[in-house]
Amino acid sequence: MRFSCEKKDLLTGINIVQKAIPSRGTIPVLEGVFVETISDMLRLKCSDLALSIESHIPALVEAEGSVVLPGRVFSEMVRRFPEGRVEVECDSERTVKITCGHSRPTLQGMSASEFPHMPVIPEAGAVEISQCRLKNMIRQAVFSVAADESKPILTGALIEVEDDDINMVALDGYRLALRREKLHRKHNSNRFVVPGRTLSEAAKILSDEDSMISIYTGSNQALIDLGYTRIATRLLEGDFIKYRQILPQEHTTTATVSTLELLEGIERASLLAREGNNLIKISVQENKFIITSNSEIGTAYEEIEAKMEGKQLDIAFNAKYFVDVLRNLDDEQIMLNFNTNISPCVVRPVEGERFLYLILPVRVFGA
Amino acid sequence: MRFSCEKKDLLTGINIVQKAIPSRGTIPVLEGVFVETISDMLRLKCSDLALSIESHIPALVEAEGSVVLPGRVFSEMVRRFPEGRVEVECDSERTVKITCGHSRPTLQGMSASEFPHMPVIPEAGAVEISQCRLKNMIRQAVFSVAADESKPILTGALIEVEDDDINMVALDGYRLALRREKLHRKHNSNRFVVPGRTLSEAAKILSDEDSMISIYTGSNQALIDLGYTRIATRLLEGDFIKYRQILPQEHTTTATVSTLELLEGIERASLLAREGNNLIKISVQENKFIITSNSEIGTAYEEIEAKMEGKQLDIAFNAKYFVDVLRNLDDEQIMLNFNTNISPCVVRPVEGERFLYLILPVRVFGA
Repeated sequence: MRFSCEKKDLLTGINIVQKAIPSRGTIPVLEGVFVETISDMLRLKCSDLALSIESHIPALVEAEGSVVLPGRVFSEMVRRFPEGRVEVECDSERTVKITCGHSRPTLQGMSASEFPHMPVIPEAGAVEISQCRLKNMIRQAVFSVAADESKPILTGALIEVEDDDINMVALDGYRLALRREKLHRKHNSNRFVVPGRTLSEAAKILSDEDSMISIYTGSNQALIDLGYTRIATRLLEGDFIKYRQILPQEHTTTATVSTLELLEGIERASLLAREGNNLIKISVQENKFIITSNSEIGTAYEEIEAKMEGKQLDIAFNAKYFVDVLRNLDDEQIMLNFNTNISPCVVRPVEGERFLYLILPVRVFGA
Repeated sequence: MRFSCEKKDLLTGINIVQKAIPSRGTIPVLEGVFVETISDMLRLKCSDLALSIESHIPALVEAEGSVVLPGRVFSEMVRRFPEGRVEVECDSERTVKITCGHSRPTLQGMSASEFPHMPVIPEAGAVEISQCRLKNMIRQAVFSVAADESKPILTGALIEVEDDDINMVALDGYRLALRREKLHRKHNSNRFVVPGRTLSEAAKILSDEDSMISIYTGSNQALIDLGYTRIATRLLEGDFIKYRQILPQEHTTTATVSTLELLEGIERASLLAREGNNLIKISVQENKFIITSNSEIGTAYEEIEAKMEGKQLDIAFNAKYFVDVLRNLDDEQIMLNFNTNISPCVVRPVEGERFLYLILPVRVFGA
């Protein structure tokens, strides 16, 4: 194998694919970056078996071949190379000679034949969506996936496609995020559950542009195709919770507040929430929310302007669940629905149905 | 006690003084920020006993008093306050009511009488130096203080004043940093050893401006006086190593290289240095340095242009000691002096005597 490419292209490619390198490695070859020449391109790939990412960069190929290079060192090395041309030559012993300016390191490669292949998934029935739209959906939903593995299916987010609707749903038993978007055309019905880690890494790779990408789904795998870059992931198996059944149909109190004021008030109050439960109380009153909390060293008292209709109520929450939602919303104002102080709060946009968050309250004795 | 002040002034003051809060607290009051009214000012202070920092900010004082507020929470709270006026009122139970916009937290204060006082040091014989000059001296020397406590005096840097010369010296048994500057007038002779932590924190507080500050020294304490801010520190006791005796007087090889090229070459080579010893070899040749290193996964080979006079030699170093020096130098070119491959390398400016670094080589068997 012998090729040359621009340092900046190589670095861009490595930065994309290395997101799939497992954090704790047990299989040595997976700690590497797979490098393969394809006519006038270089294919780079990393995989932790559950998630695989490949990317293509332009290269001048003089002899075809493939090899796996030690991932962490190769990526740090390329980052520190001077700008310019990188030349790479791999011999039959997989000794890889690299030249960039006056830097001429040699790396011991591993056999590319042991590296996992990207799954082959039929291209029929792909979901088509713009990069920025998918990125935004992920950002506004993925924080609600379960962190613990006791119910593995909840560590992923459900993606539902129906006609020109796409929904992303994540829930962990204490809160639920539902993010709805429109597709540019009708699609066949489709439902699949993507691991949260895949979505988080994909969101870092997706751009803020509105170029279209395709999502192909097989029985237990999916492929997000960005053109030069492809993200393959296993899907989570099992039945996702029938979330529609737990969305409240009625409410007795509706309030409209500034997203930023509510976020800042809750963040300040949580500084004085007793460590561990992170408990804040919200008193929903006619023209305002009063947020309070207390700990050994003091008490918080925050007033937020609100437009309220319906019954007043006092309700308590884990501050983190509100902060996660509010930090990821771009809407200046949001609407909150309450029933009682033991039923979930619903966070919605002032207009439309783009998102819906459910946050379970904390039952406070003597409140 | 009752006062009001601008949020941004309060935050600036807290950011300065909280550098002295001990990282692991055993005395509760030291985890606090001492707050005291003084006519139309507020004095803020933190201390870990060895290091104390106080700063003054403008305030409208309505009732005099002092209190100690829980440090971490108070500083986070002020950071998150909206811009504007902060009103503070402390009652006789030391319950402190704070108001900033619609945020009205209450904190439980501690008694200010238990908080350590700033040392009283005679003002005679102060060393006067500009902020930027002292900051630069610290940055270019303090990384060489010893990290381990086996010889406590080496965890500090020696400051020597003689006529209009000031030197700062730090060494840890493997390397030495000597930074020389001129004072704007003659001073009495003075020698004292300041803890490395004090110098590191002081460098963060010192500005890049050339306004003058004063350093007052007592028998075992010193005070760095910036005007609105004062930094008090204990001095390290004992005899500092007679460093002049270990500065090499002769050399057989002199080389001039680009600081940045040498830094980047060494950093790349150290990626392939065996973990633990971080060993790189430098072959000093007529027109170039060749830097090599090796590990299980590969070998580094870096060529750096150099102007050399004298004998060629091969010598090995811990990469970190070179990187620490080169990262902190602003000179485009530097001069290196060598004798043998078991005697220290000296790093100097191409002109003048502003700095001198000594780096001990590593003895390599079979090299």
